[in-house]
Amino acid sequence: MTTEADHRYMARALVLARRGLYTTDPNPRVGCVIVRDGEVVGEGFHVRAGEPHAEILALRQAGEAASGATVYVSLEPCAHHGRTPPCADALVAAGVGRVVAAMRDPNPRVAGEGLARVAAAGIGTTSGVLENEARAINPGFVSRMERGRPYVRVKLAMSLDGRTAMASGESRWITGEAARREVQFLRARAGAILTGSGTVLADDPRLDVRLSAEDLGIEGPVRQPLRVILDTALACPSAARLLDTGGSVLLLTGKQDSARHAPLQARGAEVVTLPLAQGRLDLRALMALLAEREINEVHVEAGPRLSGALMEAGLVDELVIYMAPHLMGSAARGLMELGLETMDERIALKIEDIRAVGEDWRITARPIGTP
Amino acid sequence: MTTEADHRYMARALVLARRGLYTTDPNPRVGCVIVRDGEVVGEGFHVRAGEPHAEILALRQAGEAASGATVYVSLEPCAHHGRTPPCADALVAAGVGRVVAAMRDPNPRVAGEGLARVAAAGIGTTSGVLENEARAINPGFVSRMERGRPYVRVKLAMSLDGRTAMASGESRWITGEAARREVQFLRARAGAILTGSGTVLADDPRLDVRLSAEDLGIEGPVRQPLRVILDTALACPSAARLLDTGGSVLLLTGKQDSARHAPLQARGAEVVTLPLAQGRLDLRALMALLAEREINEVHVEAGPRLSGALMEAGLVDELVIYMAPHLMGSAARGLMELGLETMDERIALKIEDIRAVGEDWRITARPIGTP
Repeated sequence: MTTEADHRYMARALVLARRGLYTTDPNPRVGCVIVRDGEVVGEGFHVRAGEPHAEILALRQAGEAASGATVYVSLEPCAHHGRTPPCADALVAAGVGRVVAAMRDPNPRVAGEGLARVAAAGIGTTSGVLENEARAINPGFVSRMERGRPYVRVKLAMSLDGRTAMASGESRWITGEAARREVQFLRARAGAILTGSGTVLADDPRLDVRLSAEDLGIEGPVRQPLRVILDTALACPSAARLLDTGGSVLLLTGKQDSARHAPLQARGAEVVTLPLAQGRLDLRALMALLAEREINEVHVEAGPRLSGALMEAGLVDELVIYMAPHLMGSAARGLMELGLETMDERIALKIEDIRAVGEDWRITARPIGTP
Repeated sequence: MTTEADHRYMARALVLARRGLYTTDPNPRVGCVIVRDGEVVGEGFHVRAGEPHAEILALRQAGEAASGATVYVSLEPCAHHGRTPPCADALVAAGVGRVVAAMRDPNPRVAGEGLARVAAAGIGTTSGVLENEARAINPGFVSRMERGRPYVRVKLAMSLDGRTAMASGESRWITGEAARREVQFLRARAGAILTGSGTVLADDPRLDVRLSAEDLGIEGPVRQPLRVILDTALACPSAARLLDTGGSVLLLTGKQDSARHAPLQARGAEVVTLPLAQGRLDLRALMALLAEREINEVHVEAGPRLSGALMEAGLVDELVIYMAPHLMGSAARGLMELGLETMDERIALKIEDIRAVGEDWRITARPIGTP
């Protein structure tokens, strides 16, 4: 049975969890609140892989007050030895009175084990308090555990009439500064930023995070997501600006041509050959590879071909479209290439939010039916 | 000097004026409230051309109480003999104490005459109370008087990616029922509905108002707007459904070919030849013609070519775009053909409103810089 207090303290644990938005990768964002006699005696959130889990930080803060207290944690405590010892054991050792989790560990192989270990010690457990909210904080971690692929967020910028560049390719800037700054925060939360060689050739973007720790409200260094370039035919020039900036670059190609891999590798890029499917890189294999590398959220900034291919492959979880208050006309380039011929084939979306961002509008939508 | 009470009663007069939204054409929508000793003693709004003006109805209701009262009217009282005698004279004859108008008559040749005649009788006058709101109720009448052309509202329906039809031309239905019903109300307030022969050939629309008097909240018959077809090359088939429905049809063409005019005329259409400009009908001449015919608001439901041509000619005052939660892909047809080549040439809009209409979203925007 859950109470109003359970919801209140779990909501606080979720606020704490969110503070790890830009730092916990590849770990999930987790927050913890310890309450004894209606008073918060300990709080914590996971900051970085290798550093203590939220429960441990909260237990440390609570000290002896943890004895008999209720522990609210936004994700089931771990039961395995990873980089740190199991939190379930620490909770038992501290003699807590009750453990409330927002959600079970989404990894089907371990789900429930942490709570089971706590319960085996005679401690009351509850799960499922604000579960949807907790899942929403870790869409990538949950996706990787449950579906074996990262959560994919596709960011696009278009005019009101759905155009992303003039016929000439000119596209700077479709949107205003406020929208472009917001995109920096979307990049910063991602484990990887995905683009295609076409975009590299056309725009020569850096695709890095140019926010400071202060901008992000974090302590310590700013994490640069892995940059991933899909380059079926090895067209990416080794002079690309993306290779100048710090951080790792992974170039995926269909061409096993070590002579042409070498100059890219010399510039620091890791070059991996992916299988081709009908002449195009196999996007499911790509996602499996990124999941294997513990990428939780993939942020896509690509052209209409790659964006469309991901959409058609059912690999898009979220669209974030910045719509500028302009008309560019039908000769300009479109948002997404989709091989559709009839109205029945249209891709249906659920528009979750539309709001003003500076002079532009941000539309957040999900394809209906993406598993 | 105006008071809080002035604003309050004028707001009421504007509510009354709006009740004529679907019926007053070609006259403006006007409301009137007569207040004596803090009490409303008379109200009225203009219903239909040829019927009494708002002031006369309100004076009738007020009877002797009009003597010494304050009269709030959303448009300056008329000073000329039209289909009815001048309201200014009636107000003077009733011995009212003060006349407050929201706005002057927008016709520059008569502006101020009505209030001047009232003032000449020793009655205090005020103008400009809620003026912007009053102008917004009669955008077409104001435009026709001040600019010599109707107010032009372009309605479009598109997918999220700015597409209006599949490559095959299939377009039924881009939007849902709620949006399509709302469009009926937009049609009903217009003096004319404008389309191109391409749309007639592709969709064979009726472009009539299919709402009842009850739907519109009016008494008496539902006014059918004039349907106007731009048909440069006389391509409109005489079997078009648009010619079946009641109401008048005006077909504007560049071809003086009486043999081909005849079958359209036999079906009830009036055929008028307009000058051509670079092979296309002169859109400014079109608007002058419609103003001459006392059309206040033009509602455009046309394809990307005509919509784009109106936009490029600076003849669009308002865009009402229904955006469906779908992706149709870059092979589908675009919203508007515009001869733009660089980002600098983009047409800037002011987005005034975005809101949900059923499952779709309605975007209301104005081109920045339309005079």
